[in-house]
Amino acid sequence: MQSTMQDVPLLVSRILTHGSTIHAKAEVRTWTGETTRRRTYAEVGTRAAQLAHALRDELGVHESDIVGTLMWNNAEHLEAYLAVPSMGAVLHTLNLRLPAEQLAWIINHAADPVIIVDGSLLPLLAALMPHLPTVRHVVVSGPGDRSVLDGTAATVHDYEQLIAGRPTSYDWPELDERSAAALCYTSGTTGEPKGVVYSHRSIYLHSMQISMAESFGLSPAHCCAPLVPMFHVNAWGLPHAAFMSGASLMMPDRFLQPAPLAEMIERERPTMTAGVPTIWQGLLAELDARPRNVSSLQAVISGGSACPPSLMKDFEVRHGLRVVQAWGMTETSPLGAMAYPPPELDAEESWPYRISQGRLPASVEARLAGPDGRLLPWDGKSAGELEVRGPWIAAAYYGGAGCEPVRPEDKFSPDGWLRTGDVGTISPDGYLTITDRAKDVIKSGGEWISSVELENHLMAHPEVTEAAVVAVPDEKWGERPLAAVVLRDGSALTCQELHAFLSGRVARWQLPERWVRVPVVPKTSVGKFDKKVLRQRYADGELEVSVLGR
Amino acid sequence: MQSTMQDVPLLVSRILTHGSTIHAKAEVRTWTGETTRRRTYAEVGTRAAQLAHALRDELGVHESDIVGTLMWNNAEHLEAYLAVPSMGAVLHTLNLRLPAEQLAWIINHAADPVIIVDGSLLPLLAALMPHLPTVRHVVVSGPGDRSVLDGTAATVHDYEQLIAGRPTSYDWPELDERSAAALCYTSGTTGEPKGVVYSHRSIYLHSMQISMAESFGLSPAHCCAPLVPMFHVNAWGLPHAAFMSGASLMMPDRFLQPAPLAEMIERERPTMTAGVPTIWQGLLAELDARPRNVSSLQAVISGGSACPPSLMKDFEVRHGLRVVQAWGMTETSPLGAMAYPPPELDAEESWPYRISQGRLPASVEARLAGPDGRLLPWDGKSAGELEVRGPWIAAAYYGGAGCEPVRPEDKFSPDGWLRTGDVGTISPDGYLTITDRAKDVIKSGGEWISSVELENHLMAHPEVTEAAVVAVPDEKWGERPLAAVVLRDGSALTCQELHAFLSGRVARWQLPERWVRVPVVPKTSVGKFDKKVLRQRYADGELEVSVLGR
Repeated sequence: MQSTMQDVPLLVSRILTHGSTIHAKAEVRTWTGETTRRRTYAEVGTRAAQLAHALRDELGVHESDIVGTLMWNNAEHLEAYLAVPSMGAVLHTLNLRLPAEQLAWIINHAADPVIIVDGSLLPLLAALMPHLPTVRHVVVSGPGDRSVLDGTAATVHDYEQLIAGRPTSYDWPELDERSAAALCYTSGTTGEPKGVVYSHRSIYLHSMQISMAESFGLSPAHCCAPLVPMFHVNAWGLPHAAFMSGASLMMPDRFLQPAPLAEMIERERPTMTAGVPTIWQGLLAELDARPRNVSSLQAVISGGSACPPSLMKDFEVRHGLRVVQAWGMTETSPLGAMAYPPPELDAEESWPYRISQGRLPASVEARLAGPDGRLLPWDGKSAGELEVRGPWIAAAYYGGAGCEPVRPEDKFSPDGWLRTGDVGTISPDGYLTITDRAKDVIKSGGEWISSVELENHLMAHPEVTEAAVVAVPDEKWGERPLAAVVLRDGSALTCQELHAFLSGRVARWQLPERWVRVPVVPKTSVGKFDKKVLRQRYADGELEVSVLGR
Repeated sequence: MQSTMQDVPLLVSRILTHGSTIHAKAEVRTWTGETTRRRTYAEVGTRAAQLAHALRDELGVHESDIVGTLMWNNAEHLEAYLAVPSMGAVLHTLNLRLPAEQLAWIINHAADPVIIVDGSLLPLLAALMPHLPTVRHVVVSGPGDRSVLDGTAATVHDYEQLIAGRPTSYDWPELDERSAAALCYTSGTTGEPKGVVYSHRSIYLHSMQISMAESFGLSPAHCCAPLVPMFHVNAWGLPHAAFMSGASLMMPDRFLQPAPLAEMIERERPTMTAGVPTIWQGLLAELDARPRNVSSLQAVISGGSACPPSLMKDFEVRHGLRVVQAWGMTETSPLGAMAYPPPELDAEESWPYRISQGRLPASVEARLAGPDGRLLPWDGKSAGELEVRGPWIAAAYYGGAGCEPVRPEDKFSPDGWLRTGDVGTISPDGYLTITDRAKDVIKSGGEWISSVELENHLMAHPEVTEAAVVAVPDEKWGERPLAAVVLRDGSALTCQELHAFLSGRVARWQLPERWVRVPVVPKTSVGKFDKKVLRQRYADGELEVSVLGR
């Protein structure tokens, strides 16, 4: 039977138009390290229209063309965020923290014809330009020495000059809501980076979700400070959601160091903020050293990796700030779960829920696939690889210009669910706990041993400063854990003692036999344990391993 | 360019599955007038599956078949709400307050083969049955004398017996999200009732919207009491949204009288409630007479018609309850606007915003069409007919079984927007104020005069108890206002004096020349001024009109 509802597509241009009219007075504030640039959403709306005119009429950007941005969190990046997809082009946010070769690889894979760049990032781009044959136009926003681009083949434009005097409204096209709106590559710790292409529909629905009360609960009463960069999964969707819900935005630009951040929070009084644990770690130390008034913050949302419970407690006890964990990834837009405890529980009962990865929203379905591929029950104990499904979850990766999307088997199940690569449990009341990465879990005799769980127990020992556990081949069991530990200077702790320390804490069959003391755990560029390197060193016989009897 | 997102449809079955698993412990509580029946969302989920099995296997209900419900707000109605659309059939909520002939007309127009009925409503249905040739099955829920249905052609089932022992899960079909989910007829003060067919998509998106912080803000911390009946525009979407967001539901069943309602609120402590001003008027009088502890209520949402400002103030001052106005209609699912004031304003500054119809959500676009059809500016002054567009706004009415949807010209613009029939203004900051119904506005010399505004001014005179203003034909101006006033007993107020009273309050050209004193203003069955009757009496020369010089 036919419905009689209007068939109105869910488009980024609707978010833009809504925010710039109904929430015309809301503001995007950009921190300059000491002071604040303010721009109303009405102004962002007219400038986004001008940018779209410039991109189309001056730079020849058409529907489906890709526009790259190499920018921090600021008002101009917000304008590009809204203008580029609204005009039917595709916003490609570039991760400025990646190694140069990887960044160049990504730009060439997407074949970006245009890059909008912050003036402060010109040296980075200039070094790449000789390796970027597809880039025809560079648009420079804000102060910075343009001369570093002298001699490049691309035409260089000044952002303000480019948009100045153009029409302040744009007849945004009525697009298919499933068409591409934005492109973001995963940093790809293994293999080549992989591009996720968000649709207008996925961005719109995700914006609605994070404006819901039980997610980020954005409203005009909020001023949200996204400390997560806009080149990381659309800053978790906050720029779009703020425009949709009328919340103001407090953008840190490039001033993500603890001292200017603390200053920004005290001065501009955002009501909520979102970022990764590393940021909170730095901010906590700063606030401990130089207390500030951060009482405006009603919520501190932490994601990207598990937030250490001690950090959550310290923030709460020492500074009255409540950290709420969220789980997601580039492939999930990112909101996959959020750790609000059941409301009827007291503080102590809530704690296990708060340090979990949280509860799924209605649009995200989840299931756990066990070591043999069979689905596991939601009993809070059975650990399996988390697979998810939903309208803002990836079904494939970008294949590159003119190519079909790619669907690697280890990333997508035959029936189309995303294999997250995270291993965990789901409780009977729907709370997700991630215990490990699938590639790091130790597959021992048909059972899984969590490397993260062993590491956490080991790092709780007062003489252990770092510990990494990796899978190594074992004739009898397939794989067994190898524990690599960093001890405090002068410690004479033995592996027998550590083995004994662990044995009351985990099941007997999970106890590592292989132990090695290392001066430091190798790390990736973003500071995560680089277990690939450890496994390789073990394979190459470079580690002096002690083996205990089992 | 192709997006790489999953193509997952937005379906009512997703809402059902989410609520009954992730929010398994949330409850629907049904008030019995003195006590409460409790059922968890997990139980609602299994019973909804059993109901779907029964409807399919026992009653032969297939995809696109219509299932009528003649029920109050209770747990069983909630089960039907979720089960019927989830299995691909269409839920048709029947307004039990309509005159019998209209109700029969509606059931026959939709050709309902099945009706689920509350036992308490059996006498009503039994009287209709001889006139309902399409109804093959009647399912009776709860206590009530089944014998009144003896002799009808339809098969009569008991709800509990029908679902007992059936499988507790159902393989919900993967439907097109644009397919029909629910059918609701407008009560139709003029002409025949008109059916609006909601889609899965429209219900899903509307549920997300009303779970957003700036709408109803539902979350697991809430217990929501929908006092608006489930046969009125899906109880404003609250049953679906509660299942989506994990809020519990407190259902009043048929006990909508002030005393049991007040008792229910005190005992069960819902955190929010929603209903029409008539309900609040009764509840206020009850609370004034017999004070109760209603402190659990964080929000009282009022819609359906404008809430008198005095009622809002009395609730707030005398009982600490904050009334928030919302605007919508059957054709808008219903949420079209919600009157939260800009957060930076103090109580006094907020007031004009709180008594407006409110601010549009992102998915609802609005425009004002002036007397000549041209679009008017959002200046807070220019009054035009409100037209709206969005994914949960109707594009047409149900044409009946096997017929095409109908699109009457006075209800839908050529480019597909809904003509709401409401006349009002939109302020530069996006707040909507409805000043009149389009059919009641006075079209005078190319300008519109609001009948409601004149009435409000007149009724502010201490000697006027009621005042109705209607358009009457005028040779020079097309139409002019006729003011019909009811004076207090013994008042000798003249029309000259009333004219003078008005003249400082409205523009000179809006002042009525024609006046008549009437003993009472004629009213419709739902208590609204019946202006049709007044206009007819004037046309028939039945009114003794005084005419003042202009």
